Amino acid sequence: MKKATKYSFHDDDSEGEALAQTNMSQHSGYGDDDFCVDARQAIQRLIGANNATVCFVAGSTGANLLAIASHLRPHEAIIATELGHIVGKEGGAVEATGHKILVERGVEGKLTPEQIQSAVDRSSEFAWQPKARMVFISNTTEVGTVYNKSEFEAIAAICKRLSLLLLMDGARLGAALTSAKNDMTLKDIYDLTDTFWIGGTKNGALLGEAIVIKDPAFGADFPYHMKQRGMLLAKGRVLGIQFSTLLQDNLYFRLARHSNNAAAEMSTALVRMGYDMWMRTDSNQVFVIFPPALVQVLAKDFDFFVWKYLSDTALVVRLVTSWATDLSKVERLCSIVGEGSERT
Amino acid sequence: MKKATKYSFHDDDSEGEALAQTNMSQHSGYGDDDFCVDARQAIQRLIGANNATVCFVAGSTGANLLAIASHLRPHEAIIATELGHIVGKEGGAVEATGHKILVERGVEGKLTPEQIQSAVDRSSEFAWQPKARMVFISNTTEVGTVYNKSEFEAIAAICKRLSLLLLMDGARLGAALTSAKNDMTLKDIYDLTDTFWIGGTKNGALLGEAIVIKDPAFGADFPYHMKQRGMLLAKGRVLGIQFSTLLQDNLYFRLARHSNNAAAEMSTALVRMGYDMWMRTDSNQVFVIFPPALVQVLAKDFDFFVWKYLSDTALVVRLVTSWATDLSKVERLCSIVGEGSERT
Amino acid sequence: MKKATKYSFHDDDSEGEALAQTNMSQHSGYGDDDFCVDARQAIQRLIGANNATVCFVAGSTGANLLAIASHLRPHEAIIATELGHIVGKEGGAVEATGHKILVERGVEGKLTPEQIQSAVDRSSEFAWQPKARMVFISNTTEVGTVYNKSEFEAIAAICKRLSLLLLMDGARLGAALTSAKNDMTLKDIYDLTDTFWIGGTKNGALLGEAIVIKDPAFGADFPYHMKQRGMLLAKGRVLGIQFSTLLQDNLYFRLARHSNNAAAEMSTALVRMGYDMWMRTDSNQVFVIFPPALVQVLAKDFDFFVWKYLSDTALVVRLVTSWATDLSKVERLCSIVGEGSERT
Amino acid sequence: MKKATKYSFHDDDSEGEALAQTNMSQHSGYGDDDFCVDARQAIQRLIGANNATVCFVAGSTGANLLAIASHLRPHEAIIATELGHIVGKEGGAVEATGHKILVERGVEGKLTPEQIQSAVDRSSEFAWQPKARMVFISNTTEVGTVYNKSEFEAIAAICKRLSLLLLMDGARLGAALTSAKNDMTLKDIYDLTDTFWIGGTKNGALLGEAIVIKDPAFGADFPYHMKQRGMLLAKGRVLGIQFSTLLQDNLYFRLARHSNNAAAEMSTALVRMGYDMWMRTDSNQVFVIFPPALVQVLAKDFDFFVWKYLSDTALVVRLVTSWATDLSKVERLCSIVGEGSERT
Repeated sequence: MKKATKYSFHDDDSEGEALAQTNMSQHSGYGDDDFCVDARQAIQRLIGANNATVCFVAGSTGANLLAIASHLRPHEAIIATELGHIVGKEGGAVEATGHKILVERGVEGKLTPEQIQSAVDRSSEFAWQPKARMVFISNTTEVGTVYNKSEFEAIAAICKRLSLLLLMDGARLGAALTSAKNDMTLKDIYDLTDTFWIGGTKNGALLGEAIVIKDPAFGADFPYHMKQRGMLLAKGRVLGIQFSTLLQDNLYFRLARHSNNAAAEMSTALVRMGYDMWMRTDSNQVFVIFPPALVQVLAKDFDFFVWKYLSDTALVVRLVTSWATDLSKVERLCSIVGEGSERT
Repeated sequence: MKKATKYSFHDDDSEGEALAQTNMSQHSGYGDDDFCVDARQAIQRLIGANNATVCFVAGSTGANLLAIASHLRPHEAIIATELGHIVGKEGGAVEATGHKILVERGVEGKLTPEQIQSAVDRSSEFAWQPKARMVFISNTTEVGTVYNKSEFEAIAAICKRLSLLLLMDGARLGAALTSAKNDMTLKDIYDLTDTFWIGGTKNGALLGEAIVIKDPAFGADFPYHMKQRGMLLAKGRVLGIQFSTLLQDNLYFRLARHSNNAAAEMSTALVRMGYDMWMRTDSNQVFVIFPPALVQVLAKDFDFFVWKYLSDTALVVRLVTSWATDLSKVERLCSIVGEGSERT
Repeated sequence: MKKATKYSFHDDDSEGEALAQTNMSQHSGYGDDDFCVDARQAIQRLIGANNATVCFVAGSTGANLLAIASHLRPHEAIIATELGHIVGKEGGAVEATGHKILVERGVEGKLTPEQIQSAVDRSSEFAWQPKARMVFISNTTEVGTVYNKSEFEAIAAICKRLSLLLLMDGARLGAALTSAKNDMTLKDIYDLTDTFWIGGTKNGALLGEAIVIKDPAFGADFPYHMKQRGMLLAKGRVLGIQFSTLLQDNLYFRLARHSNNAAAEMSTALVRMGYDMWMRTDSNQVFVIFPPALVQVLAKDFDFFVWKYLSDTALVVRLVTSWATDLSKVERLCSIVGEGSERT
Repeated sequence: MKKATKYSFHDDDSEGEALAQTNMSQHSGYGDDDFCVDARQAIQRLIGANNATVCFVAGSTGANLLAIASHLRPHEAIIATELGHIVGKEGGAVEATGHKILVERGVEGKLTPEQIQSAVDRSSEFAWQPKARMVFISNTTEVGTVYNKSEFEAIAAICKRLSLLLLMDGARLGAALTSAKNDMTLKDIYDLTDTFWIGGTKNGALLGEAIVIKDPAFGADFPYHMKQRGMLLAKGRVLGIQFSTLLQDNLYFRLARHSNNAAAEMSTALVRMGYDMWMRTDSNQVFVIFPPALVQVLAKDFDFFVWKYLSDTALVVRLVTSWATDLSKVERLCSIVGEGSERT
């Protein structure tokens, strides 16, 4: 699957498209076009590992199910917090590949070494449970918190000690690495995990996540897994283009920093107005406690999740900013909240 | 998942992208944006069924595995010809969802009612085999032949009689419906199948196939299947845009007709030069028998599959034209073949 | 698969065995021998349904995974309490068939209609979760409690209202139906569930559970499922013999009653000695709170589970009686407890 | 899971049964009772490997699906002949675990090194096919032929060279090792395969197959697989008893030899009467070509498979003898054939 220099009658996948910026020149497919190669090399440079496997897939559920199903034998299970994206947000995709998730409570969305130990203990005495073999964490977590390096190292250490693979979901990795709380680099992430992925969809890409695999034994066969799960795009350059663009001139991190700044601004303003945060704002997700009446008012102009019912007078609302968030909209939300507060 | 008229802090999927033509306005995701709605309605008009379920997925292996796994109970099997795309070209994707393919010989790439009956007979006496419950055909077939209406009706009739669901892979449906051999409409396809899909990837789209499901019982839950298999794109409009464009002004069929014409031209020229066709050229795939020396010469300038070894002096070569095939390249290939013939 | 009256050269499965009481006469296999037919008819009489499907499998994990995987489409999920056998005691068998378990808290091991409603609500708004489609209960529950008829009817009613299938694990159904708390018959169980199974292994059989399926659409194909999961024994009579024996002269219920009586005796004695029960003793499982020192003493002579750590001075111990429990051993255990109590 | 010397209140699985010869003493379950330990050690002595993993399961489909699913990663496939038991007789059990079978033609039921090479070649160039990783053979084969040592060694050698695991289905291993064609020992089988199983069901046991696994990495986790697939019997001694009995005093091989002798006698007589064999009689299966009229006559008194239709005047009939075949019945069959022949 080399770069096409010859005219191709190889397949009807080989040719262009009505909408793309790629011109009528012919590209080889399935993830080995020039764009994918560029993006792959950019990532390899950032993590300091020329031989790491880097594959691109269209979405985050796919990234997780591929990484998990390809790494585990059938009787093996994966440990996650109850807020883990694979637990409650991916339609049972992990179970659909045959694997159980061993759920731990988590602390502010983070998994702790003690919880990992506990899950292993519970699955070790006999085959009542499938055998714990992998740990799933997200950075940022599903509630926007960020692992610092010492927390991350502690998890990596217990995984090593217990022969567990460590997988990191990086749907919001840009937000994590540009958070004020962060003290890690992309290279640190690579060094401390077995496999992780860099989210494009939530940080400026139309679609696409980049999976990074350290162990060549897993990496070599990964395209077989992708094909088998229907995730090897014929025109892989669609994904490569997203990442090669995002990784130029630090664009990926600049976009993420914008999200974080917008969230920080919103969070600060809401706290100043006297609202309690349900979770501290480490990155681009603001979890604020609002009275139901205010939620109703905001719902007229804004789209957001009501995350959790606390009481009849208190709802947790999740407000997510993005790389494209218009700061004037943040101000407008805050001013509506301000007016709403006065009325009540 | 309605059209977004409100400003969204719903998720970081909700916003734009560096590369797309869609602007910074916010779209609801997961296949309910304006583009998907437009494309869905265009297809519903073409098949004359406002209530048909139409979903968009990124690629053809995904379209097949979703359609099959969502329609079958675990002990049920699907019948296909040995050339069927699901049999040898999709990485074991159907088996990975737990289903066996009952393989029949086929005739010129087509399945016959007799073969369907035979497969059912073989799987009915006892549970030695999983129970046949679905039939898989491709139009055009994997060797470029086209079903005519009476062949298609005969298959649909035996499926009805034996309580089998009929699935049609339309990766090259454009080429089929614009073939000189064709006497069917898209509405006929809809009326005679249970589920089929319209291929975008092989006919001008960057990515995308449109799955059309007749039975509302299957249709209603289909997004659950898509999510569970990692195939529900957060920014579904990426797919909707492709199809809404392709379905304007008959573009989809104009592109396909171009492919077919290029193939016909090539085929006619090669026959005129004395080469035998391994399969007649009904659509955009030319299967020609060449001596190995000529294959070597052509391989310097063109990219193609050597489909089959017949003997030491005869190889079957597959030449595929596409919507973007430059006719001057067809002429050049033919002229190189001509020179090669003279030399030998 | 009729009764063998002819001499068979059909297969080498067809003939006898070194150890069994069945003689050298030849039996047809795969669950249609005379013993299976007898046992099937005995069950059909007890539930008042001649047309119910009754199949025999070797063990309880198999019974559950078959019942669940055969009834659900791939994107569907099953609701259970956190103590449910399928949740933590079956090695991830349900997940290995691709289905997620939606876990609810339970009350004394029982699922409530409110919890069922809550699980459905959580899985309905979008495909974040697989779709709830089945409810799993055990009677007796995993902590030995017994559903009464009004509780059972309430669950059946909400299942009907929400289009959920109801599956009952009857590993200890004998103990349930002979409990002092019970006000149901086997016929009631049949009428109120979609599918349930009668446990043999835990009530006198060497191996074997009898699965009872109401809907003929599920029943007709069940042997295909059994075969596909490796659970259709060639010599099905091994299972039929167990059940035809157990169902003669009410043996099944007499054995269960013995277990319950032994447990009641033990429970009463322990309470009299001043020990707290962690769960009331409705059937053949005694959950008692002991100090660790006493647990150590008992462990010298008896085998049992330490179910739960409550505090450094209190452990929950599970003592299970069976159809074969020697009452003198119950007395001995109680007398050792008595001595242990005096010493402390 | 040690031997029970204490009185057990551990579980209600722990106690006896109405039908078995094991008395009311309590046995530890799940394959670690005395009988399983005895049988395991007997097998380890026969293969000269004290550290081989030996596990007992109830039936042959289960043995195959466990061995295959536990050894393969999801994208890996298994090679078998088109007559392979897993291909057409196990209800799609292998596919139900997610794996594709790459089917080769076979020669007299045997796989050849050339066919293995060819299957690997076809699955190697790209992820069109899942990756070949295991080879499945049966000895005796499904048509009663027997591998000799040099054939077996050639297969083992190419497996080693191509990094393929070798699995042998020994449903009729007794018949193979006592065949006149055999020049192998059980130890040879162990040395040349990665995993194989010894069939009990078809050679005197009520139920049970013994799986032998060489690589400790696979062996260590095997009980997790068994549990997860519902194949870890609570009262594992049911299986252990069968094998410990069969392996005493060479009983297993004496029974098998009887089957082979009965078949040889039948085969010789039929050939003498002028009937053609469709396959030579190496073991306990006789494949003879009969006219339809004779088949009808025999069907009145005997049960057998019509294996294959050759022409309107010739059917292949399969006659299987077993360890329990009464030789007078063989004579009676032959005499009916003799009379039938005279009449026609």
